[in-house]
Amino acid sequence: MNTLKGIFVPNIVPYTQEGRINEDELRRIIQWLGQKGVTGFYPNGSMGEFIRLSYEERKQVVRIVSEEAGGRPILAGAAEPNVDLVLEMCAYCADLGCRAVSITGPYYYKLTQESIEQYFRDIAAQSPIDIVVYNIPAFANEISVPVLKRLALDCPRIIGTKDTSRDMPRYQQVLHEIKSQRPDFSVLIGWEELLCPALFMGGDGGTLSSAGVVPEVIMKIYDSARAGDWAASKQAQFKLLDLFSLMVNAPNFPEGFRLGYQLRGFETGRARFPLAPVEVERMGEIRGRMACVLAECGFPEAAAACRAATATAATGDQDNLSRIDIESIVRDVMRSF
Amino acid sequence: MNTLKGIFVPNIVPYTQEGRINEDELRRIIQWLGQKGVTGFYPNGSMGEFIRLSYEERKQVVRIVSEEAGGRPILAGAAEPNVDLVLEMCAYCADLGCRAVSITGPYYYKLTQESIEQYFRDIAAQSPIDIVVYNIPAFANEISVPVLKRLALDCPRIIGTKDTSRDMPRYQQVLHEIKSQRPDFSVLIGWEELLCPALFMGGDGGTLSSAGVVPEVIMKIYDSARAGDWAASKQAQFKLLDLFSLMVNAPNFPEGFRLGYQLRGFETGRARFPLAPVEVERMGEIRGRMACVLAECGFPEAAAACRAATATAATGDQDNLSRIDIESIVRDVMRSF
Amino acid sequence: MNTLKGIFVPNIVPYTQEGRINEDELRRIIQWLGQKGVTGFYPNGSMGEFIRLSYEERKQVVRIVSEEAGGRPILAGAAEPNVDLVLEMCAYCADLGCRAVSITGPYYYKLTQESIEQYFRDIAAQSPIDIVVYNIPAFANEISVPVLKRLALDCPRIIGTKDTSRDMPRYQQVLHEIKSQRPDFSVLIGWEELLCPALFMGGDGGTLSSAGVVPEVIMKIYDSARAGDWAASKQAQFKLLDLFSLMVNAPNFPEGFRLGYQLRGFETGRARFPLAPVEVERMGEIRGRMACVLAECGFPEAAAACRAATATAATGDQDNLSRIDIESIVRDVMRSF
Amino acid sequence: MNTLKGIFVPNIVPYTQEGRINEDELRRIIQWLGQKGVTGFYPNGSMGEFIRLSYEERKQVVRIVSEEAGGRPILAGAAEPNVDLVLEMCAYCADLGCRAVSITGPYYYKLTQESIEQYFRDIAAQSPIDIVVYNIPAFANEISVPVLKRLALDCPRIIGTKDTSRDMPRYQQVLHEIKSQRPDFSVLIGWEELLCPALFMGGDGGTLSSAGVVPEVIMKIYDSARAGDWAASKQAQFKLLDLFSLMVNAPNFPEGFRLGYQLRGFETGRARFPLAPVEVERMGEIRGRMACVLAECGFPEAAAACRAATATAATGDQDNLSRIDIESIVRDVMRSF
Repeated sequence: MNTLKGIFVPNIVPYTQEGRINEDELRRIIQWLGQKGVTGFYPNGSMGEFIRLSYEERKQVVRIVSEEAGGRPILAGAAEPNVDLVLEMCAYCADLGCRAVSITGPYYYKLTQESIEQYFRDIAAQSPIDIVVYNIPAFANEISVPVLKRLALDCPRIIGTKDTSRDMPRYQQVLHEIKSQRPDFSVLIGWEELLCPALFMGGDGGTLSSAGVVPEVIMKIYDSARAGDWAASKQAQFKLLDLFSLMVNAPNFPEGFRLGYQLRGFETGRARFPLAPVEVERMGEIRGRMACVLAECGFPEAAAACRAATATAATGDQDNLSRIDIESIVRDVMRSF
Repeated sequence: MNTLKGIFVPNIVPYTQEGRINEDELRRIIQWLGQKGVTGFYPNGSMGEFIRLSYEERKQVVRIVSEEAGGRPILAGAAEPNVDLVLEMCAYCADLGCRAVSITGPYYYKLTQESIEQYFRDIAAQSPIDIVVYNIPAFANEISVPVLKRLALDCPRIIGTKDTSRDMPRYQQVLHEIKSQRPDFSVLIGWEELLCPALFMGGDGGTLSSAGVVPEVIMKIYDSARAGDWAASKQAQFKLLDLFSLMVNAPNFPEGFRLGYQLRGFETGRARFPLAPVEVERMGEIRGRMACVLAECGFPEAAAACRAATATAATGDQDNLSRIDIESIVRDVMRSF
Repeated sequence: MNTLKGIFVPNIVPYTQEGRINEDELRRIIQWLGQKGVTGFYPNGSMGEFIRLSYEERKQVVRIVSEEAGGRPILAGAAEPNVDLVLEMCAYCADLGCRAVSITGPYYYKLTQESIEQYFRDIAAQSPIDIVVYNIPAFANEISVPVLKRLALDCPRIIGTKDTSRDMPRYQQVLHEIKSQRPDFSVLIGWEELLCPALFMGGDGGTLSSAGVVPEVIMKIYDSARAGDWAASKQAQFKLLDLFSLMVNAPNFPEGFRLGYQLRGFETGRARFPLAPVEVERMGEIRGRMACVLAECGFPEAAAACRAATATAATGDQDNLSRIDIESIVRDVMRSF
Repeated sequence: MNTLKGIFVPNIVPYTQEGRINEDELRRIIQWLGQKGVTGFYPNGSMGEFIRLSYEERKQVVRIVSEEAGGRPILAGAAEPNVDLVLEMCAYCADLGCRAVSITGPYYYKLTQESIEQYFRDIAAQSPIDIVVYNIPAFANEISVPVLKRLALDCPRIIGTKDTSRDMPRYQQVLHEIKSQRPDFSVLIGWEELLCPALFMGGDGGTLSSAGVVPEVIMKIYDSARAGDWAASKQAQFKLLDLFSLMVNAPNFPEGFRLGYQLRGFETGRARFPLAPVEVERMGEIRGRMACVLAECGFPEAAAACRAATATAATGDQDNLSRIDIESIVRDVMRSF
């Protein structure tokens, strides 16, 4: 048994002023995350805006990540528009040494569960690399539990699932109906709020966008759980909620997370998808509140950072916000556990 | 602090052949549940078909339950059609000595969150009895977390919430945003699959339809959790899943649970809402599978009961199914923990 | 063939200061609508807040309407909580001489189409009065077209349908699949925006909340269509859109329509379901805009009324708004066709 | 004023046995449709599986269609993954001489209306070709009527909308709120069942997948409406319903339409997205019923074709179905008007 376990970080894609992929900054992000002790990486997921990149850009991203991964395993998104292109991307990822690929249900058209099952069967039969079935019903066709079960029991190449449905009962059904029969099947959670309960019920880990912004907190939830220190895991889980809520509810996912990366000191560039002027303004407020959120937990440094942000926001000087040192805030949060 | 804690059982309403409430059998059910050690009772909830009873019948049900509760606390549904009738029912329940009433969001019309908040404020200002806000968005208007938070912080009469949304992230937000600020606020779960994770994250208990059918299993999940034996709690939680799935997915809730009561030896009578002939047949199959579910867990008595059910179903003699002794099956399940 | 045809007006329920049904004002409304030439009446529909009345109040409403109908046919809502109560209400309406009853799909629980079909079959088999199947999926279980078709072809008591789904393709399917096989089956539309296209495609009429506020406009759409003057029917249809939009999108249906009745000179009393203070304020603005809407069409009296409303709103003196004479505005609108 | 008017046919993409685009057959289809008198063409829409083609394949399709259009106007899909790629495709289509491009709301992520508005503004400011805003909320983010209105009034490049929402009230609102203020704005319907009512209420035409299968029927609805012969238009509209229902409800849109093309004598190849074996079988039945549908209307040739199909289906010899001559059936249908 070689089950996928741990935290795989879905990276942001930083852009240059010209709107191209900022390779240097992407390398710097991956290296930094590696130093923080994350398990592995997850390029070309929803967080990585795979849908807004060209095919060549998606290859570029996974190549860069693989070059900087430092031996950590890579779970690479490969949700291409048709079976042939999926298989081409699978081969590309296999050649780069990725551990597995992750494939969403098809998007845009509403398809039958029968066709979706056949789609994954066709891919699994030909893929040179292990596959994780990625369920994200808010954006793509849902993959039902019975379909997932048949795929898991019939297809050796399908080694796990990532679930971003927010649906905890579904997650438990997957553990109950599938993992009970195929114990090496990896059941990863893709929704931050559920990480601790998912691990508690028997899950294997997760791919969580927040892990790119506050890897310390996510790894605290995960490592404490692995060590059996559930009180610490729960405490970190609750501390994460406000920050996550600000990032995930900001206009136009994943722009709230882009703000988070900026606050951690990275040059992420502008969004590839345009924001309206009124939203650019709203994002400035959200950036300030992201510091205040931690301040409200009672950490003095956070309070200071929050006051600075608020004052800055009031005077309209948004640029100074990026100087907020949330790194030190997070350090204090970590020390407090 | 006098927080509502524990398992409040939402009872079925048994009917006579003439379609009236079967008082004797209802008394027998409440007494039996009391002997099983449940915390309290929850008449006139969704399980209790409050919507299909007349106003007088709802009073009759809560009166009977209060007479048989043997001192156990009662949380009584009071989701009447308008504020005056809600208050009338509140007074009635207060006179009977109920602990609190539970009130759903309004149903039928889609209302604004502002109006829903005002509705609960108006009731809370005048009610002679404590109130639990019951969120069940599949059937009635959702009550948003911000509205619930304002109600919890402003209205002393509102002492808790029951959440039947299946939405674990919401449940955690309620714990995080409300219970953290008002620790005596009771946060009850109303969805079976989430009982163990809800208790793990800090919840106070639940009102779960299955608790009327297999009180032993539900109390095992709850009591083990209270005792810190999470492994046993989780084990019982997973064992519950298949049975719950059969009951909740049977045609026309709560008819799947009615089957469960029948298998435990109660005369529940026919459904008040008609089933089509094809569904009556389907219910016969489901009744057989309910025994088989436990059999599949590997308990010999269940296997025998399941074979009997299957054979019976095959010969079309559905009536014999009611003789399946799932009581003994449950006893074995409990012994195995 | 005695097909239900024409416009059946769903009346508002006016309340006294004490919150009781204002009988005198209800009588005055029905008489006024009769003078305007509407086809018939539709008490105890969604507009009539049947769900917020007690059983006795519903009987009171239909009795009053029948006493004032002046021989015009009545289609009475009879969506009671269970089959026995539905049948009791059917008998009551039959005794009063109503033409037919209208029954929604069951609300609150999500039911199977099979059970819903059985529910209507059981009622149809025992009802002493003709039945219209009322499809309003926003508030109650949808009744699928195949179910409706079987009911229409099998049950003589089921003589028509009222469709409030906003779903024009469904409406056409009902005409195509059902009315083509049973030509006397009445296919009524329950959504204002679709009245003219529904009549154009072969529908029989409608039950439209706006018909209680601007019976002149609704009857213009209907009568012009019957006379083959489609240009006039379309013109009136487009003129209705803004007013309808304001009424239907106001907080807490049917409060926007209550405003409309007030502007026509009726004492409707407060809403039975509470509005938040912020919404009461918003309703004041909407009341003003309801006059302005017609003013924007270019009628001088409307412009004057609108300016008065705007000025009044600005000074916070909402009560004066009720003095706006939209009666004269409507008269001008009618004259302009 | 140069308003887009008429029927623009969204073509199927036929594939070779190797899964490449079958250029010859695509040319043959476009030529045939031109002979049938359709107004223009609509490559790379939902029907044309733009989402399953590579970027180069999309260019290939629009190039082929433009080469065979014979002077008929082309409205080309250009819903690329980001603004730069959209503009690149706009330029490509402009160079080919297309009349306009059609752009859906963004898909996959759920975006704010503000961002969606900005997206269209950014494109409109830079596009070298006119733009139609394509609303298809089942597959992509909805574009609200207020956003569409601002775009229509502010952006000269945005010359119309295509609406595939099935939402007739929305369509009428667009006519009422936008076309009334900008009369040259083209309001096209993208849902077959609504073509006749849309034209009746003042619409300009449509892009309808069925127009590729039965151009005779769609043009009959359109041409009769233009000529004021609404009875003939309605009759053809109702005749279309069953055929459309079979095609649109077949598994995995647009496979039902692919069947239709096959029955008209074209070699469409297999679906690019896999069907499960059980669905392949189901498609065989649907193919037979497509002939029977017309037979049920009472045309002798259709009855014969239907009997052949049924017999063939019974013996499992699906291949013979392609020999059904629905061409002659359609000819008879047309003659009957």
